Amino acid sequence: MRCEIIAVGTELLMGQITNTNAREIARELSALGVGVYYQSVVGDNEKRLKEVFALALQRTDLVILIGGLGPTEDDITRDAVAEELNLPLEKNEFWEKTLENFFGKRLRSMPEVNRKQAMVPRGGELLPNDRGTAPGIYIEKQGQIVVLLPGPPKEMMPLFQSQVVPRLQNRLQSTGELGVLQSKILRMVGIGESSLASKIKDILDRQSNPTIAPLAKGAEIHLRITAFASSTREANNLIEETAAEIKAVLGNYVYGEDNENLEMAVAKLLWEKKKTVALAESCSGGYLSHRMTNISNSSGYFKSGLVTYSNPAKTEILGVAPDLIERHGAVSEEVASEMARCVRRLNDAHIGLSITGIAGPTGGTPEKPVGLTYIALETEQGLSCKRYEFWGSRREIKERASQAGLYLLRLYLLEA
Amino acid sequence: MRCEIIAVGTELLMGQITNTNAREIARELSALGVGVYYQSVVGDNEKRLKEVFALALQRTDLVILIGGLGPTEDDITRDAVAEELNLPLEKNEFWEKTLENFFGKRLRSMPEVNRKQAMVPRGGELLPNDRGTAPGIYIEKQGQIVVLLPGPPKEMMPLFQSQVVPRLQNRLQSTGELGVLQSKILRMVGIGESSLASKIKDILDRQSNPTIAPLAKGAEIHLRITAFASSTREANNLIEETAAEIKAVLGNYVYGEDNENLEMAVAKLLWEKKKTVALAESCSGGYLSHRMTNISNSSGYFKSGLVTYSNPAKTEILGVAPDLIERHGAVSEEVASEMARCVRRLNDAHIGLSITGIAGPTGGTPEKPVGLTYIALETEQGLSCKRYEFWGSRREIKERASQAGLYLLRLYLLEA
Repeated sequence: MRCEIIAVGTELLMGQITNTNAREIARELSALGVGVYYQSVVGDNEKRLKEVFALALQRTDLVILIGGLGPTEDDITRDAVAEELNLPLEKNEFWEKTLENFFGKRLRSMPEVNRKQAMVPRGGELLPNDRGTAPGIYIEKQGQIVVLLPGPPKEMMPLFQSQVVPRLQNRLQSTGELGVLQSKILRMVGIGESSLASKIKDILDRQSNPTIAPLAKGAEIHLRITAFASSTREANNLIEETAAEIKAVLGNYVYGEDNENLEMAVAKLLWEKKKTVALAESCSGGYLSHRMTNISNSSGYFKSGLVTYSNPAKTEILGVAPDLIERHGAVSEEVASEMARCVRRLNDAHIGLSITGIAGPTGGTPEKPVGLTYIALETEQGLSCKRYEFWGSRREIKERASQAGLYLLRLYLLEA
Repeated sequence: MRCEIIAVGTELLMGQITNTNAREIARELSALGVGVYYQSVVGDNEKRLKEVFALALQRTDLVILIGGLGPTEDDITRDAVAEELNLPLEKNEFWEKTLENFFGKRLRSMPEVNRKQAMVPRGGELLPNDRGTAPGIYIEKQGQIVVLLPGPPKEMMPLFQSQVVPRLQNRLQSTGELGVLQSKILRMVGIGESSLASKIKDILDRQSNPTIAPLAKGAEIHLRITAFASSTREANNLIEETAAEIKAVLGNYVYGEDNENLEMAVAKLLWEKKKTVALAESCSGGYLSHRMTNISNSSGYFKSGLVTYSNPAKTEILGVAPDLIERHGAVSEEVASEMARCVRRLNDAHIGLSITGIAGPTGGTPEKPVGLTYIALETEQGLSCKRYEFWGSRREIKERASQAGLYLLRLYLLEA
């Protein structure tokens, strides 16, 4: 079954609100095995809405219209759909009563304009809305399905899930299309999009079901594996086979799945290996501490994060020798290494990690450009320090530096 | 000028991500006086993308396509547009060099697949992207405009604002269509949405042009003032009149305008008053340090931020007396106050600020529930400590705690 989702509303077109409804509906439909082929947004304009709706009827089997079912003049979806389908509007007595009761309870009489919310195109089913005055409408005509849903997300989603999804499932069952689309995201760090693509080129080239789509996400790469099958179990099996193949090639670049972010993956390793960590941050400004303490119960592994931004803080609080900074500069392998050593000792932690660099946009020099960053890690295995040249805005450099720090932590912990 | 925005990507169609790009672009276009008539989403499918693009060319004058400009097989926008417009793709030497340098700096050679990112339909202009490898493209053909933009929002928006908006403005100017919708946001902190609304009820009730829309945004309230006029100057005058009226009522609740966030407003005060600050954070986990160091040149006021998460870190690094923690608990007025004192002295800063609380979701008790937070501020004027009960998720509590800390800093600095 091919579907188009049409969101109706000038406020969407003008960018006053984000079209989250289309996303929510699309996600639900994909999980049912319905292919969403198009999404459209059109304003509160009857002529254009009719044109968009007519096109959707030409190119898909299921058209879901969201919004424009309110009581006011600019709510035109019901009328436009009825006219385009050539179905007269008929009053639904049940809903008219419901509305009268609704207003009666609030001790006022129903405004006349609300009566149109009880009108349904002939042959259509009214889908009661227990959170608002606009009901949904479900129409089948010559094998096609048209669904009208109210715009407010809090009314739309419960109505869709409880009343539209079961109807669609029945239909898909009867036509033998009831499939299941499942997907999983593999999250990778330490590898770029194009070198990832070349490493798994063979797998990408012969993909069909599951499909595999790489996506750059900030400082990491996500790989989405999507499978279609007749059951959830079968779809998941297909996904797991492909995931295993990809992991065999990519190894430790894959750090997590779905919603597990890098700080969570590192937290799990810290818990598992019973290690504690202390951070000395300079250019990342506390961002890595923030990420590591976003995990609930992080107090189990996180001792402290010292954002020693000024040089006196590096010498007096961490204990870095002033002449080391004088000789090499605060952004240097020597100072990064000493910061990691000091913060580890000061906190009696298993792991000391330090980040010092130039977040920019000012402060760079030809020898030490904006983005230059040293990250050092001291553990019972000894000390290592890496040099990076990150690019991007101040925020992005902080992001990449914290990401690199977590990546180094992860590599160490995997072996620890 | 009539516009259609086409977002390309199967991940959008399937509802895996929300189409925030269309919203952002639509908002900018509306502000220029461009009418956004349609928004569409189509997957990474060349045939359907071409059909959708062809329809957009029939019904609008300006077509903006977002996404599908990456280096991999499923990035098809460039090819589809070139074919549909019947323009051969030509290599842009400048961008090819830029990409080679980009990969060269990372000490690896450019993957072959990236070369297609330097291809531009004949007659089109390449719009350099300084945050990624996919450039934008701007094409005028027979009076119509087609714009291609990369999908990642961090690359898309700066490119659109700096390179597409000026070109569109020129075009609108030349056709006499340049109407002006201007808006300004007043940012408020320390006041809730409903008490705000009641304070400025009179102004809200008689709004027409400008319109005024309050919006709760995380831990603060934004008030958007929007005016339409024949010139920017006239629109801005209308806005300023209303803004002045609102500020006269709301006073210090208004801390900034437009993109000036609270950390920037506080940074300006710190620079102006020549004050330095040092932080001792516990439950906020470095988030306040992160916010305060997001400001470029924050080293001028930020001495250090000590994320003393564990009790030993509080005693050994900050110097809080162990028996104070034993008697009152780490989350107490006494410990918060001592943390502020200690961190101020340790850093020889003008201002010491501390945050200690329970970020949850675990760790709460009936006496000390999740969300309980103490924030203390020590300055040459003395010490003050406030008690809060924040609500929400762990992330939200960190957000609200950092916001409250900045608000206290602001109040102190206004008088300092």
